[in-house]
Amino acid sequence: MRATVMYSAGDVRIEDVPDPSIVDPTDAILRVTRACICGSDLWPYASMEPSETGQSMGHEAIGVVEETGADVRTVKRGDVAVMPFAISDGTCEFCREGLQTACVHVGFFGNNGMNGAQAEALRIPYADGTLYPLPVGEDDALMPSLLTLSDVMGTGHHAAAVAKVGPGKSVAVVGDGAVGLCAVIASKRLGAEQIIIMGRHDDRITLAREFGATDVVSERGDEAVEHVRELTGGFDVHAVLECVGLEQSTLTAISIARPGGAVGRVGVPQDETMPASQLAFYNNVTVGGGPAPVRAYIEELLPDVLEGRIEPGKVFDSVVGLDGVPDGYRAMADRESIKVMVRP
Amino acid sequence: MRATVMYSAGDVRIEDVPDPSIVDPTDAILRVTRACICGSDLWPYASMEPSETGQSMGHEAIGVVEETGADVRTVKRGDVAVMPFAISDGTCEFCREGLQTACVHVGFFGNNGMNGAQAEALRIPYADGTLYPLPVGEDDALMPSLLTLSDVMGTGHHAAAVAKVGPGKSVAVVGDGAVGLCAVIASKRLGAEQIIIMGRHDDRITLAREFGATDVVSERGDEAVEHVRELTGGFDVHAVLECVGLEQSTLTAISIARPGGAVGRVGVPQDETMPASQLAFYNNVTVGGGPAPVRAYIEELLPDVLEGRIEPGKVFDSVVGLDGVPDGYRAMADRESIKVMVRP
Repeated sequence: MRATVMYSAGDVRIEDVPDPSIVDPTDAILRVTRACICGSDLWPYASMEPSETGQSMGHEAIGVVEETGADVRTVKRGDVAVMPFAISDGTCEFCREGLQTACVHVGFFGNNGMNGAQAEALRIPYADGTLYPLPVGEDDALMPSLLTLSDVMGTGHHAAAVAKVGPGKSVAVVGDGAVGLCAVIASKRLGAEQIIIMGRHDDRITLAREFGATDVVSERGDEAVEHVRELTGGFDVHAVLECVGLEQSTLTAISIARPGGAVGRVGVPQDETMPASQLAFYNNVTVGGGPAPVRAYIEELLPDVLEGRIEPGKVFDSVVGLDGVPDGYRAMADRESIKVMVRP
Repeated sequence: MRATVMYSAGDVRIEDVPDPSIVDPTDAILRVTRACICGSDLWPYASMEPSETGQSMGHEAIGVVEETGADVRTVKRGDVAVMPFAISDGTCEFCREGLQTACVHVGFFGNNGMNGAQAEALRIPYADGTLYPLPVGEDDALMPSLLTLSDVMGTGHHAAAVAKVGPGKSVAVVGDGAVGLCAVIASKRLGAEQIIIMGRHDDRITLAREFGATDVVSERGDEAVEHVRELTGGFDVHAVLECVGLEQSTLTAISIARPGGAVGRVGVPQDETMPASQLAFYNNVTVGGGPAPVRAYIEELLPDVLEGRIEPGKVFDSVVGLDGVPDGYRAMADRESIKVMVRP
């Protein structure tokens, strides 16, 4: 079958690789019907050291179950299912607590040698705990929005949940990528009164407004902080959703949180230390977040997708086949595309 | 009157200074009957740059109201009252939310030129919002425990509240100073099942056990992390109460928080950046805390003190008059004393 392999920064290839097969009795094989390229794939695309074996890429997918191991109980051949980006056994203490990204058997698709989903098919370990079967056909019109439940919509929701977004709250979303845009949807859905999108790309800002953003801050650094302060009557915001992961964006996030407020981080932090530790302390600002347990959130978000109350699938502005994946990486890295869907 | 003034690291003097007087109509004058030396006073004691005017010291007190300004309504001459370490007007948005340490008129006694409480008397701005009248006489036997409501007991409680300590939870307290010991009391009071005290001073460990600590970790660094992991069946703890503020203690705190857990910081951070940002992220560990709104917590904690259910006053192992204050600083800095009470 064909799959996407990254060999070094900027070097993404589509290759013939062996078909996946059942290894453990808890495995399933998923034929990928929809996948996508993630903002987090752009970090290795920018900086990956050359590798002889390469890394199979992709961690977001919807597909059809083709085969199941002897111990798989809750998904069966023919099921259409969402594949969240993290493997989870569904039974350990953390899974039962709803933090599947801390599962004692956790693994991340398309990372650290694990097979990726920008491919025709892949092996799904712990299929019962990992896959979430959907009550739709494989070509349902809602596929784009359903596909976001594998990562970006659940991740945006996680940022909002961690930052305690709720009715009447003021929110700032740092970053206008697909996750930031989904964080706007999540904030609106949770009842936020004011939603400030911080970004500078016209197409994304337009979409953010459509999703519920009430204000736009296009400045960076101190000017951005000043603008948020103006927009909030000098108080700053209750909740900041950090969807970038850089030192500067984290500094901005902490700087615009009002005393007693919270920062929900979902942008993968690129630095080992966090800035503004003292500022966060003196303002009693809580900083939380991490890899989103999107598997846990599907149950809550799915009805809103199925009934059309939220349309996160609008973040996809480009669709490619596998052959188009390398150019899809380039387009996202160049900010030509918000998010690329892949139909293998 | 006499008051404590610090002129540089290690240079604490008792001096004659002008008596305090009403400046604003919202002021009161408090005759100090009990004050104390705080672990946070040891930071300037270790590192203060020489100052010609000096800094009036002390931010924890109980006293008797001697005089009130024309606009003071809720406290009156003769009232015995707790003075929390922060000035708060009691009416702003943050005070109404219970975060008095972010009051729009906030100030910290014994800091930045503000008069301190290691003195015979001091001026209390916004007396209605700042002081908390007590239903006891000025020499009540419960004075030591009541005095801790001005800072250390409320601060330990804040760490526990921020870290979401509750029934059945596992807790680690980093630091065995007075705040750490009060954090043990707070954890026990909130129903924690396992309370690990991390410290290495016999007298403090003994007191921690009396307050409810179930386990002791005396190692530091990686060995401390390993020991906590052993004590928690490999899971680490739900809640870490960071009561030191150094880079190493913060690193330890984040390292022993279980995935999805929380760190409540009340040790004043001595560094501008926070370590282990990526570790906190990948484990979905929330880091919160800051200057405790002890004024807000008095209402919750006072009945337990008055009815003897908690005895935080046991952290005082030394009592001095004003003349003994300079040696009290030395004794606390040398870890000869846990916490020194001052009877001016």
